[in-house]
Formats: sequence, C-alpha cells, structure tokens
Amino acid sequence: MELFYSKSIFDGKGVLSEEESSHCVRVLRHKIGDMINVIDGLGTFYECRITRTGKNTDFEVVSVVPSFGAHEYKLEMAVAPTKNMDRYEWFLEKSTEFGVDDIFPVIGEHSERKIIKSDRCNKILLSAAKQSLKGAVPVLHEACSVTDFISYPHKDLRIIAYCGEADKTSITGALSEYKAGLTSGDYPHITILIGPEGDFSREEAALAIKNGFVPVHLGESRLRTETAAVAAVSAVYFTFIK
Amino acid sequence: MELFYSKSIFDGKGVLSEEESSHCVRVLRHKIGDMINVIDGLGTFYECRITRTGKNTDFEVVSVVPSFGAHEYKLEMAVAPTKNMDRYEWFLEKSTEFGVDDIFPVIGEHSERKIIKSDRCNKILLSAAKQSLKGAVPVLHEACSVTDFISYPHKDLRIIAYCGEADKTSITGALSEYKAGLTSGDYPHITILIGPEGDFSREEAALAIKNGFVPVHLGESRLRTETAAVAAVSAVYFTFIK
Repeated sequence: MELFYSKSIFDGKGVLSEEESSHCVRVLRHKIGDMINVIDGLGTFYECRITRTGKNTDFEVVSVVPSFGAHEYKLEMAVAPTKNMDRYEWFLEKSTEFGVDDIFPVIGEHSERKIIKSDRCNKILLSAAKQSLKGAVPVLHEACSVTDFISYPHKDLRIIAYCGEADKTSITGALSEYKAGLTSGDYPHITILIGPEGDFSREEAALAIKNGFVPVHLGESRLRTETAAVAAVSAVYFTFIK
Repeated sequence: MELFYSKSIFDGKGVLSEEESSHCVRVLRHKIGDMINVIDGLGTFYECRITRTGKNTDFEVVSVVPSFGAHEYKLEMAVAPTKNMDRYEWFLEKSTEFGVDDIFPVIGEHSERKIIKSDRCNKILLSAAKQSLKGAVPVLHEACSVTDFISYPHKDLRIIAYCGEADKTSITGALSEYKAGLTSGDYPHITILIGPEGDFSREEAALAIKNGFVPVHLGESRLRTETAAVAAVSAVYFTFIK
C-alpha cells in the first residue's frame, strides 16, 4: 500500500504538496478519479479520490481511519546524536518501524556531536512512517542538553540506560514492573534516556536518578548508542505485544 | 579496548595477518614488548605481548579468557537476503552486537536477491564482534534454499516469523514458554527463520510448520525484513537477560 502525506486536509477535502503530488502524478501516473491513501502525520488515515491534478493534487476524503497503525503506549526517546550521523538516522528509521512518539536529541557533557540536520531527519521519519503504515509521524524536537531534558516535567516511567556504576535493574525488569502496576484504562507513558558514545557524566546520571529516572542496564553485550536506543524501543514494543 | 584477530595461535604463540599487523604497527604504532588483545574468532580472548614486528606481527600469549563476551544460548538466524544489501549488512552488524552464533542466508520462492558477497559480510561480522568485545565471530554459512534449510536436522526451539495466515503466538510468548520448560543445565538452542520482502510462500510455511517450526508473529507493526530479524535477535537477548 502506497501512502501519501498531507498537512492540508479540512472539511473532507485536501491537497498534496508539490513533492507528494509529483510522486503521485508523474511517478505513479495517478489520474482524476483514482483512489489514493493519505496520512496526516498526526495519526489519521484517509482514503481519498483525486479531484484535480497539477503542480498540486486536490482530493476529496471518502473514508477515515483514526489511530492508524498506532501503538498502545506513549514512548519518548531522548537519544544523544551519534558521531556518525548515518547511525542516528538508522535509529530514527528503526524506532519508527517499531513505534515511537517523540524524539529528543539530547546533548550530554561527553557528546561529540552537538547538532543534527532536522530537515533530513524529518524526511527519514516520514518515509519510515509511510513504509511501516503508520498514520502518525514521530515528532523530532529541538536538540537540548541532557540536564535540561531531565528537568522537564516527565510523566510515569522514566528510564536512564547508564553504563556507569549505579544500582541497576534490567530494562525488561523495569518495564515488566511498570506494566504490572498499570490498572485498566491507564495509558502507559514511557521516557527513555540514552547517552552518547562516552556515556553520561556522573553528574548527569546522578541528576537523572534524583529526578526519578530509573537506572537500567541493557544486558551484558556492549551495544553502540544507536543499537542501545533501538534495543530499548524493541524492549518496550515486546513488553506490550499481544 | 582495541581487539585484534588471529587464526594462528598455537602453543602460547601467535601471528597477526598482514592486514591486522598493518593496523597494529603502522596505524596504532605498537612496538616489540607492547601488550595487545587478540581474539581467535572462536570465543577465546588472549592478552599478548608483541615479540616481533614486520609484515606480520608475532606475539606470545600472557593470559587467556575463554568464552569472552559469550551469551548463554545458541542462536541460529536464517534470514533471507534483502533486496538492498546495505540492509542485510546492517542486520549482520546489529545481531552480532546483541549476540548470534550462526547466520544462514536462505533463499525463498519470493526472494529477489539470491546471492550475497560473503567476503564483505564476513568483514562486517568480524568488525562488529571486535567492536562489541566478543571473542566469537558469528559463522556465515553458504546460501541455501528455505526448503533445504527447513529439512536440516534442527534442535530445540525452531521459530518461523510468518506474515501469512497461521495459528500464531507472539515471538516473546514462544520464547518465554521455551525458557520455562528448560531445566537446570540445559543449554538453550534457538533457530529463527525470517523470510524475504515478499514473505514465505504458503508451501514453505506449511513445510516449516510440518517440520516443527513454531509460527510466530512479531506484533502489530509492519517491520522490514532486516528489522524483523533484529527484533527477533533482541527478543531472544531480552528473554535471557539477567
């Protein structure tokens, strides 16, 4: 199934951007009257009929599917950008396939990379959401410092994957315990913090733990930053699998 | 920690290949008398002292660590090569980080790619094993057909991740049930079969199930072939996390 993306859907009508329109009309040769599938990036899927083609493509909505491809929890991943940007982009793609809501590039004391190209990252997130049939595209937030991120008001389960010394449980143990404590109707909300190649500084880890982050380990293997991040996303995914 | 690789370690002495030697002596500027860390790719770690440098580098073994970075199960992944080879190489790297023993590139009826460059794949496996501090390098087997692979004699838990219709349990459910049935001293042995982009054919899936493969699903997200493979490796990893 081919998905198009449109931010402009109101009152049962919508428009594809020039880029999406070009793919729809020039590459896939769609014509007036053809049915296409559109997501709004916020979670809703629209089955639509093309009413006009051109630089932009107009369509009318025929049917609507809310929460399309949604997962049954809210997951925020705060992950330090990797030195090699390809690896971060891979994390973005894979975590979108599993399911993630918000991504915070966090810059730690030991971070070597302090900026990311958000345009390119957003393209990867959109492409991965389309490919994995999800109506919602993960939100990439502005980069911020680890200490600022820790200080935000966070809800529910907060986890820090820390390699240094601390009294740690396994990530799956922390997730299972959290899940067991949920009551019917609770909507799980999980925030996971993953540090840069050089790990968090002692001060950052101490501040996180003071602010209610549970220190966890990810098992005995030495995982790269982006692998640790995807491992954490998959651990959440498998915790809530049916 | 920098790891070197040598296939030539006997009687407390060993030799680095030209390539490893060049990295050791030219790039890292190691000299006679320096201590280096060497793996044999079969699971053992050697702390060594350099006794001669040159085109090849000779060393003597000072101490030995068996089962270095080993995981406590045997995992065989039979994964169909992806159309885009980069994606398969990514699977090789990530599954090595988590822990895998044997990789079988299996060619299904719906496979578009039927060959892989094993030299390049073996380099990626070695590099990932060194980077993640594992003494054993996963063994990449010759490509074979899905039906041939299914017909091999397999031990213990055999899993097929199949998207088509079948009476399926979740992969984590199948793994937990298997783990619960192990008794003290049992060494877990798991084989997981992941199909190509076009999934297994009905005949392949039926043959696998007939041969004792448990059909599982990987949750509700639509995962790419390589993501499904890494998801399966991480599910095993987290099942046996301590």
